[in-house]
Formats: sequence, structure tokens, C-alpha cells
Amino acid sequence: MVTSMTGSVAHARACAEAMWASDSASRALGMVLEDVAPGRARLSMRVRSDMVNGYDLCHGGIVSALADSAFAVACNSHGTVTVATGFEVDFLEPGFLGDVLVADAREVALRGRSGIYDVTVRRAGIVIAEFRGRSRSLGRSILEEER
Amino acid sequence: MVTSMTGSVAHARACAEAMWASDSASRALGMVLEDVAPGRARLSMRVRSDMVNGYDLCHGGIVSALADSAFAVACNSHGTVTVATGFEVDFLEPGFLGDVLVADAREVALRGRSGIYDVTVRRAGIVIAEFRGRSRSLGRSILEEER
Amino acid sequence: MVTSMTGSVAHARACAEAMWASDSASRALGMVLEDVAPGRARLSMRVRSDMVNGYDLCHGGIVSALADSAFAVACNSHGTVTVATGFEVDFLEPGFLGDVLVADAREVALRGRSGIYDVTVRRAGIVIAEFRGRSRSLGRSILEEER
Amino acid sequence: MVTSMTGSVAHARACAEAMWASDSASRALGMVLEDVAPGRARLSMRVRSDMVNGYDLCHGGIVSALADSAFAVACNSHGTVTVATGFEVDFLEPGFLGDVLVADAREVALRGRSGIYDVTVRRAGIVIAEFRGRSRSLGRSILEEER
Repeated sequence: MVTSMTGSVAHARACAEAMWASDSASRALGMVLEDVAPGRARLSMRVRSDMVNGYDLCHGGIVSALADSAFAVACNSHGTVTVATGFEVDFLEPGFLGDVLVADAREVALRGRSGIYDVTVRRAGIVIAEFRGRSRSLGRSILEEER
Repeated sequence: MVTSMTGSVAHARACAEAMWASDSASRALGMVLEDVAPGRARLSMRVRSDMVNGYDLCHGGIVSALADSAFAVACNSHGTVTVATGFEVDFLEPGFLGDVLVADAREVALRGRSGIYDVTVRRAGIVIAEFRGRSRSLGRSILEEER
Repeated sequence: MVTSMTGSVAHARACAEAMWASDSASRALGMVLEDVAPGRARLSMRVRSDMVNGYDLCHGGIVSALADSAFAVACNSHGTVTVATGFEVDFLEPGFLGDVLVADAREVALRGRSGIYDVTVRRAGIVIAEFRGRSRSLGRSILEEER
Repeated sequence: MVTSMTGSVAHARACAEAMWASDSASRALGMVLEDVAPGRARLSMRVRSDMVNGYDLCHGGIVSALADSAFAVACNSHGTVTVATGFEVDFLEPGFLGDVLVADAREVALRGRSGIYDVTVRRAGIVIAEFRGRSRSLGRSILEEER
């Protein structure tokens, strides 16, 4: 009974797991789905040697990819297939080789098919990036597709 | 005689090669430095199976990482170490498994230590993403550091 | 025969004039519609004493309003009612009291109902702001509404 | 004793009042400074007939100007002259003629001379726009300048 669970943590988790199973890119980058709830998601990722530049700083595009994946889980947590139409990111501090980065995504606004989600990326509790994503729902169910 | 080459294509290329040699992240993603000139850069990347999600679409964060790398090469082409302070990206179309994506970065504005760079990402000539990056120079020379 | 003029400069001008006639805000700020063509628009505005702060610098929000109006004319130039869903602006230099600011808007991408437009704002030929707007068409005709 | 008040509400208010006194643009748009604290500010503005277009909707640039002013008060509340380097805004709903819009600005991050501030604009408690501003401190004191 999917409908009756809409908005519940269990439903958000089922949607996230369906997405995650098919998201080769996030898994290849070593991202871990730590938590999900309606409109929210937490992911973590360890900065590997193939994610840094010569100063052993994590590539900004990889930090953004982590935030983008957290955003994707959060905006798909309501059960309809939802895509990113774009995002904005500000880099405050570098992430270093070996750091475990944690990305927390939360819904800021949802109007019709359009949404705004903010993601904060931290290392050891220190904010290293602020990300704002814009989403658009395609209207079809994530879990129906799975069947 | 580094100074005398400032602004030249040869100098931009030397800076790009120094950066590229140490950028493990861009190389691990299979990016290829196609071209560089003062304030400009072109990179390409084939969408691999570890860069897609279940619909065989390239992860948006990976498209952004390609654009971010092109931006990094372009904003460092003048010879001073320059970092990204943030960027904005709009996704227009998906990239698919096997596509070769091409990112063209160009300088839009440069005022003191701050710069704006636009990057267009295409597959088969079709624009799939528009990216705008903001940079800040740290003031020290890229090539001096190499010695 | 509106349809036959779609894409023409005459049609773009007719759409712009219909919009402009009802845009009290842009006129109250003294904006002048200098030019329009399909996907493009040029507006100008003199920085008045009620647009500055204590340093006689033009308020950034007013510079943005000029760019936003140029964007609105450009994205409505194809004949369908189109709204701004958001924008991004970078301030490069101040505008001063008495300056005539010129905003040039141009279409960067158009996919289905969504568009991206860039606007460059100059004073005396010097770029003072770069603006990127996102638009969404509502699907109905501008000129039909006028009747 | 300015220094001893740094970080206090009284100091933030003194900075805001010094700024506000010279901000002709914000006052000409009828903005009211409702509240200020370190890193925060609340402004209100009634949508007048010279701020709307033909559908009696508030011009997006004017909504942005309100948010930009709230951002300016918040980022100058620490006592050093601070300028906006840019901002990003998403429009969620229109504001209508006669509405009183309320903009709440809050500091998201502050690193060295750079800051990020989010502003939410509401009418009757409903969020109509989300704004994210980037600031840069010029290092000199606001209140010293006043003397």
C-alpha cells in the first residue's frame, strides 16, 4: 500500500533505496546513504586519492557531486520521479584527502512540480560548502516504475 | 622567462599542464585536456558506466565536475594560482552512457583578483548544460611553484 | 496575422510594446526600451538620486531590476507569456549617480517552456554586472491577451 | 566605545541606522527597517502601483531589491563596510498590489572577508521568494566613517 505511506519515513526510505540501487555514479564515488526522511537526506563520502588535485584538496566538482546526490535523494523522497534542473554552490573551505564529508539536504520550498533544496557539506562539523538545488517533478511514481 | 610569455598560448598551456599533472580527480574521471588559451579551455569526457544512474543518464554532479575542471584550467591560464569560490549550473538535457561530452570555458569578466567564467557543455554539438563559475586569484605564480 | 510574424523583429517589437505599456514598475524607474528583436532586448536607465545610497552608488537591487526588465522583454519576445523563475547576478563595478546604464539581454538556451537569458549591464561601455535569468513560458499568447 | 559593543544588538542597530540614513534607494521604495541583530535583519515594503506590471504583480526586480536591502543591513551589522558581490533569487509566487512584503535576512556563513546570507520574502506568511547573497567586507568601520 504505497499511497498510505506517502510522506512517511518508510516510504522515503523505499524511494531512496530504489534510486540508490540504480545510481552507479554515487556508489562509484564511495558515497554512503546515511539517512533519509520526507524532504531530507544525509550522505557521506570519504575523500579518496582519485578525488584530489596536487594540493591534496578535494576537487570542487566532487564536493558538488556529493551535494547533488544528497539533493537527488531528498527531492525524490516524496515518491515521484524528480530531476535536478540546476544548482548553485559556494565553496567556503577545502576538503582534504582522507576527510569524511557529510552532506545534509533539506527541502526549502515546494510549489507544484518545482522545488528548492539546500545542502550543507561539512567535514568534522565544519561547513565547507553551501549548495542550493532546483528540482522539477516528472509526475510519475518511483516505486511504480520499479515493478 | 615566464613573465614575457604571460598572456600567450604557450604560457597558458604550460600552466594548464602543470595543473593537469597534479589533478588526479579530473584524470580519474577520464577527462581529456583538448585545448587551452589565455582565459579559455576545452575538455572532453566520455560518459562511463560508473558515471550514470539507472536510466543510463550521466549524473549531474559529474557533468558539473567536467565543467568545473574546464573552468579551473581557464581561470588558471593567466599564470596565478586561482581557486573556484562557487558556481551555478543549469541542466538543459541529459548526457547518456557512451556520449563524449565537450566543455568549453571562456572568461566573461576579470576585475582585480575576481573572475567570472562561463562553460558550455555539449554532446554531439547539442548544449546540455550552461555553467557560470566565480574565481579568486591567490596571487602567487603557478609555474614558480612547480620549481 | 500574428502567426506569420512569429520570429520577426516586428512581432518581437509588438510583444515588447504590449508588455511595456503595462509595466508601471520599469517606467517608474525611468527605464527606456531601446531595442528588441527575437530573443534579445536593450534597455537603458539613468541612475537618479532616489536610486543611490550614501556613497552615490546605484543600489544593487536597482541594477538588478534593470537587468530583470531587459530579461523580461527578451524572453517574451517570442510571443508567449513568459515569467522569470529566478536569476543570478554578479556585481563587478558600481554604477554612479547620473550614469546611464545599458542592459543587453540575449537568449542563451530555450528548451520546451524553459529558457536561459544572459544580461550584461554597462556604463560608458564598461561592464558593471553580469546577470543570468531563468524563464518559463505559460503557453498563452501575449498579443491575443491584448484584444 | 564601539568595540565593546561589537556583536551586540545595539551595535548592529547603530550600524543599520547609519546605513539606512544614507540609503535613498531603499527609502524611495518605501522599505521599512523592522528589526536588526548581528547577522540578521527584517525589512518590510508595501507593493505600490509604481512597482507592478499589467497583471498587478510586483516586478521581480523590486522583490529582489527588497531582499537585497535586507541582505545589506544584515551583512553590515557587524560594523565593517561590506558590499554585495552578487546574489541568486528564486521566485516561488507573485506579490500583488497592496501586499506588505516582509524580508528576513540571516547569515549562513562568514569566512574571513566573505559571507553568505539567505533572505526569505513572504506576504501574509507565505514564502514568495528565496534569495542567497554573497558579501565581501572592505575592512573599514561603518561607525568610524560616520564621524
